[in-house]
Amino acid sequence: MSKGTVVLAYSGGLDTSCILVWLKEQGYDVITYLANIGQDEDFDAAKKKAESLGAKKVFIEDLRAEFVEEFIWPSVQANAIYEDRYLLGTSVARPCIARRQVQIAKQQGAQYVSHGATGKGNDQVRFELTCYALYPEVKIIAPWRIPEFYNRFLGRKDLMEYAEKHGIPVPVTPKAPWSMDANLMHISYESGILENPKSHAPADLYLMTKNPQDAPNSPDVLEIHFKKGVPVKVIHLQEGKSKDTPLDIFSFLNDIGARHGVGRIDIVENRFIGMKSRGIYETPGGTILYNAHLDIETFTMDREVRKIKQGLGVKFSEMVYNGFWYSPECEFVRHCIDKSQENVEGKVQLSVLKGQVYILGRESPKSLYDQELVSMDVQGDYDPYDASGFIKISAVRLREHHRLQGEALSKY
Amino acid sequence: MSKGTVVLAYSGGLDTSCILVWLKEQGYDVITYLANIGQDEDFDAAKKKAESLGAKKVFIEDLRAEFVEEFIWPSVQANAIYEDRYLLGTSVARPCIARRQVQIAKQQGAQYVSHGATGKGNDQVRFELTCYALYPEVKIIAPWRIPEFYNRFLGRKDLMEYAEKHGIPVPVTPKAPWSMDANLMHISYESGILENPKSHAPADLYLMTKNPQDAPNSPDVLEIHFKKGVPVKVIHLQEGKSKDTPLDIFSFLNDIGARHGVGRIDIVENRFIGMKSRGIYETPGGTILYNAHLDIETFTMDREVRKIKQGLGVKFSEMVYNGFWYSPECEFVRHCIDKSQENVEGKVQLSVLKGQVYILGRESPKSLYDQELVSMDVQGDYDPYDASGFIKISAVRLREHHRLQGEALSKY
Amino acid sequence: MSKGTVVLAYSGGLDTSCILVWLKEQGYDVITYLANIGQDEDFDAAKKKAESLGAKKVFIEDLRAEFVEEFIWPSVQANAIYEDRYLLGTSVARPCIARRQVQIAKQQGAQYVSHGATGKGNDQVRFELTCYALYPEVKIIAPWRIPEFYNRFLGRKDLMEYAEKHGIPVPVTPKAPWSMDANLMHISYESGILENPKSHAPADLYLMTKNPQDAPNSPDVLEIHFKKGVPVKVIHLQEGKSKDTPLDIFSFLNDIGARHGVGRIDIVENRFIGMKSRGIYETPGGTILYNAHLDIETFTMDREVRKIKQGLGVKFSEMVYNGFWYSPECEFVRHCIDKSQENVEGKVQLSVLKGQVYILGRESPKSLYDQELVSMDVQGDYDPYDASGFIKISAVRLREHHRLQGEALSKY
Amino acid sequence: MSKGTVVLAYSGGLDTSCILVWLKEQGYDVITYLANIGQDEDFDAAKKKAESLGAKKVFIEDLRAEFVEEFIWPSVQANAIYEDRYLLGTSVARPCIARRQVQIAKQQGAQYVSHGATGKGNDQVRFELTCYALYPEVKIIAPWRIPEFYNRFLGRKDLMEYAEKHGIPVPVTPKAPWSMDANLMHISYESGILENPKSHAPADLYLMTKNPQDAPNSPDVLEIHFKKGVPVKVIHLQEGKSKDTPLDIFSFLNDIGARHGVGRIDIVENRFIGMKSRGIYETPGGTILYNAHLDIETFTMDREVRKIKQGLGVKFSEMVYNGFWYSPECEFVRHCIDKSQENVEGKVQLSVLKGQVYILGRESPKSLYDQELVSMDVQGDYDPYDASGFIKISAVRLREHHRLQGEALSKY
Repeated sequence: MSKGTVVLAYSGGLDTSCILVWLKEQGYDVITYLANIGQDEDFDAAKKKAESLGAKKVFIEDLRAEFVEEFIWPSVQANAIYEDRYLLGTSVARPCIARRQVQIAKQQGAQYVSHGATGKGNDQVRFELTCYALYPEVKIIAPWRIPEFYNRFLGRKDLMEYAEKHGIPVPVTPKAPWSMDANLMHISYESGILENPKSHAPADLYLMTKNPQDAPNSPDVLEIHFKKGVPVKVIHLQEGKSKDTPLDIFSFLNDIGARHGVGRIDIVENRFIGMKSRGIYETPGGTILYNAHLDIETFTMDREVRKIKQGLGVKFSEMVYNGFWYSPECEFVRHCIDKSQENVEGKVQLSVLKGQVYILGRESPKSLYDQELVSMDVQGDYDPYDASGFIKISAVRLREHHRLQGEALSKY
Repeated sequence: MSKGTVVLAYSGGLDTSCILVWLKEQGYDVITYLANIGQDEDFDAAKKKAESLGAKKVFIEDLRAEFVEEFIWPSVQANAIYEDRYLLGTSVARPCIARRQVQIAKQQGAQYVSHGATGKGNDQVRFELTCYALYPEVKIIAPWRIPEFYNRFLGRKDLMEYAEKHGIPVPVTPKAPWSMDANLMHISYESGILENPKSHAPADLYLMTKNPQDAPNSPDVLEIHFKKGVPVKVIHLQEGKSKDTPLDIFSFLNDIGARHGVGRIDIVENRFIGMKSRGIYETPGGTILYNAHLDIETFTMDREVRKIKQGLGVKFSEMVYNGFWYSPECEFVRHCIDKSQENVEGKVQLSVLKGQVYILGRESPKSLYDQELVSMDVQGDYDPYDASGFIKISAVRLREHHRLQGEALSKY
Repeated sequence: MSKGTVVLAYSGGLDTSCILVWLKEQGYDVITYLANIGQDEDFDAAKKKAESLGAKKVFIEDLRAEFVEEFIWPSVQANAIYEDRYLLGTSVARPCIARRQVQIAKQQGAQYVSHGATGKGNDQVRFELTCYALYPEVKIIAPWRIPEFYNRFLGRKDLMEYAEKHGIPVPVTPKAPWSMDANLMHISYESGILENPKSHAPADLYLMTKNPQDAPNSPDVLEIHFKKGVPVKVIHLQEGKSKDTPLDIFSFLNDIGARHGVGRIDIVENRFIGMKSRGIYETPGGTILYNAHLDIETFTMDREVRKIKQGLGVKFSEMVYNGFWYSPECEFVRHCIDKSQENVEGKVQLSVLKGQVYILGRESPKSLYDQELVSMDVQGDYDPYDASGFIKISAVRLREHHRLQGEALSKY
Repeated sequence: MSKGTVVLAYSGGLDTSCILVWLKEQGYDVITYLANIGQDEDFDAAKKKAESLGAKKVFIEDLRAEFVEEFIWPSVQANAIYEDRYLLGTSVARPCIARRQVQIAKQQGAQYVSHGATGKGNDQVRFELTCYALYPEVKIIAPWRIPEFYNRFLGRKDLMEYAEKHGIPVPVTPKAPWSMDANLMHISYESGILENPKSHAPADLYLMTKNPQDAPNSPDVLEIHFKKGVPVKVIHLQEGKSKDTPLDIFSFLNDIGARHGVGRIDIVENRFIGMKSRGIYETPGGTILYNAHLDIETFTMDREVRKIKQGLGVKFSEMVYNGFWYSPECEFVRHCIDKSQENVEGKVQLSVLKGQVYILGRESPKSLYDQELVSMDVQGDYDPYDASGFIKISAVRLREHHRLQGEALSKY
């Protein structure tokens, strides 16, 4: 008798194929689920493989459009960046994938979900918090945290042996000496030889972007149009091409960014579970958008609103990194950030060249930039004399401090 | 009879030469003061010019070393960046210049200081807040905010006429159609044709960095050594050269960055006085250091300390931008940030190429990175099983929220 | 010929009566405007006085209901408190008063507004920022900042003489040796003998609340009902009375609080213009609401949302104190706070006694409190075992820190 | 053969007595440790009881002085308060107790520590994070999270039976229908009948403070002297008594506060493990100090430093509540807060009456309050005219906003 039904997040690779078979061994009915979020994958082959390994049902879901619209776009609005550098390409994909997984689980009457994420990483947290938030009664089977499983499969060799024994096709090409995770937004690389934080990444590691040294030495010049803080159109100014649906826009920016080697970083970051890890990321289109959005936002948003919103963006990034996309606080912050974007509208011109994004100019019907006011040639509605009072009053506190407690300042 | 003595921040240019003469006309004795903070200037010529225009004394002060050590280094420790993009090259120079100005004023018994900053900009604030903070009784003469002055000199033509009439040498080369401010850390460009935020910056604007398109297509690879959050050595790995005093280190990084066109940005920013302005900046060495410091800091600093310190850095940047370097809050924040840097020590390897800085690897005796702990191949002192409890407890709140208020979530 | 029309915020007192006449002397047509925001005032007498002094029109406006609904309620939602103690009773009234003033100015075609606030205080800023924000072209006449005015009227004696000379009725009762500002929310006292921060406030200073020593020694017990973070009903549980309109609710809470001497504070605070001042405040109803709202909010709001909202509340309080009620940032923050209050609903029972508010209990249909989950007697949907993993993982970072940098800790 | 030695945090009560015996049953040698942090306890009796139950060693440690100096004083400096209301009396005691526990464990060569905290509370976290931080290799036995233990002892009856069977003295007085935790700083009450958040606390619950209704109706008037942000002396002004060591000062303030019923709160709070709980606290001396310190701090600290320090205090409170006293971030924040207190010095006069603390006045040699500057009667070194410029420049941004995006404002 079956112990129940499990919806397994299945990648088609060796690990999750072994998990599929192992779950069956444990007495579960297994439904596999593979999300297409833009990674390079033979989905048909994966489907056949899952079926041949005994999956009761196989779901292949194209989530690319909703990934861009519901997950990447809010991150663009937020200028989401973790620890000042990482654009959260993996983090933002996890709730998108897990959301569909629990939808399938609920719809198929499955009490269990399972995944192949390791026990030391962030992804286990991101997957599972999403599952618990959207399907509180769900039970989660995380084999890499179950002693019977992880003590049995101590290394890749053990998995290979298990695969051979159970008729699981074994990969013929040798595995890269690191692990990677790919989606429409980025590819991340970690583990293996990258675990030594001092070692340089091999040149052939990057699969998504060209080496900037090999990139063309003439820029692509783009114009990106924003409305409510998200891109609604991108125009290649030299070629006249344009895109205007979210998925097309993002894919096109990826192409341009990739061609010029944009968005490569090598960082040590802080995982939610408390350890530092080294990660290498390439996020071509996301990097272009991050820069363009920063530009149009500052152009159209009041300074003080921007400060508050910047603080919310830092919090948002941390929540997303830690797996709390579906949490009351993240819903709240997304709402607030979305509100802040009402007037973030206009066009940014930029060039992309050799790993860099250069903002060239911007315009907007909602601009708060007042050329006459700021001009050095025209006075505008501004009396320079007022600045004296402004500075004098701003100095009241400083002068008092000097007078009353300022012995320390007397050294100057 | 003299109205008193004024120490005038004198650049040698047309504006402050006219101010010098005008102040004399108003009945003041004028001492000129010109700070060498690394700008490209003929200091001897400026000295002679000031003397010939009737300055009672002329001070030329080489502040380059203290500028690097006391102003740029704390900014590096802070990862100081204004509105996510501007590295504060002008902002950080102002308190350095004004501090010496009031030192001279006090020492020379001058009750007045004067400067040529405009009435719409940030620099007037930065200069004057420093003066008031360090010399609370000082009186400030800011001609560009005095109606008799600014109504008399409505444009450059008026200054030229005044100059000719008063024997002030008139510049023979035409002025660039924008204004600029240069120091060891950066050059900024604004005003004039740049006031249209849509117009692209002309290619010949940049004086400090090479156009990335014309930069070499092979990287310079550097190793920067940090101690207490500041660079103590830089080694050019291919050429074997190294530098180890603050001024030499910073100048060398400037050379490398300049050669590769590093650190160019074009932004619209929010001035302290409430208007948006467009600025173009090039900060070659500062950009390299910003990236290197971020890397070694995350490598050696606890995650939660980093978060708090990041918040302090945002505040620091705002204070510095707004002119509050010499304020109780900025002294306090500098102290706290300095404390946070005690263990920020180690070596960062990076390459510089075509406008970009790529971090390659890092090592540190004070690292908090634990290769065994994070390794996917070794378990280390870590039990994956614990993560289940961690996630379950982290989800308590999310599940409760869903259960009790989660109608909104039922849509998923 | 008239220089134009001024709408003067008129209180009926000596100062603004003199200003009225002085403005006429200067050549302006004067419209007086007196807002009823709950202060104890003879509005009819003030009207007649203004007319007799030559006001072209006299507006007496009852703003009490909108003051409660549009200004006090959002402050309750925000738990607004300045520098941890002051409930902002004056600050929150200023934009309410000034808003109507510019409405009248616009409607009457007046280009000027005027007020009697001093040049050292916060109120001038609060009034004028509101005016500029809502009527950017307005011109403001602030006599206490105009040298010809303030040099002429150096003390109360000068005003008295001027009044006598111009037929302005002179107050017969001697002025209290401090100044005060009263409205529905509070009375504030400052200046005069209170300027010595060491002196105790005289017992007869307080006009709104009873001395706690003289208050009844048996509590009034209330139940306050909240919806969306604002009170919708208050019931006196012992007497069975209830109120359910905003103005009635607030007035009733004021009565109860006043009877028990609730809400008296004596503080030194930091003014926006950079000086410290000493203020004494009594805010009876506001203090009860502050406590009750804190209680129901924590009961119904997620912990992490609360944290973010708490930060927004601190910012809100500062903005309101500084006069930025009508600013893009304050509008934004009010929107966000309002959003956070969607589920802040329920009933709080409390007792009021001798200057104190004691929360007794609370209930809510939107509570996030789960009695079964938290119970020590029942396990609920919670496995204590999970906490071990939670703590172990939370300790990963601490143990690493000790291991790698923890020499300092070895002292323990 | 022994499984090893356990240092058990022993209270002398039923629970930890059973744990003592149970640990022996499991094969451990048990050392008991009882900290005197000011609770009302018969320490001799507890010692004898532990010995009679087979403890190999018994440590009774008087930690009261270090509790005040090293834990309460930094909390006073921080104005530490959790979720705007709770003064952290339990939270702050835990690291103090656990620190000595691991000192004993290390010194006695014990590999294990154990405690009787439940699996749903905060205290388990606070104890264990301290243990892991200071003794990373330690192993922790938390019986209430071990299924064999908690499934065996489902209720108090099971413990009683076990006690009888193993010769453990059984308490003769019936247990209060709630649990409590007492120390020098406060008593907390929770669980049992208090789990219903709507139920009022019974009047006889409070053990530390008098019912305000029964308290004297005449105030005690105190003067508290601060240096570097901590009290160094307290004087009873009416009686002339004074105290000047930390423990004496705090105990005296407790006495005064207790006599007047000061510091009672009834709240729902958010536990670190994600659930809401209801707690009732009485913190007499701590409440007086909280108010006095707020007063002297604002009097002597610059406004902007205060803002930053306030933010750090909120973070500190959260860390302490969650158990992270011994963490890199809490060490860092304590350092920063301590730095901010350098000039927090002076005398505060206050009265205590019927549950309330009223600040009466303050003075300080380090005050930043400038009576002349703020005076309405004297101009001081302040030109009111400057305020016009200050306000005009502060309004630049608001007027621009209205002009460019202000359609929404036109409704006013």
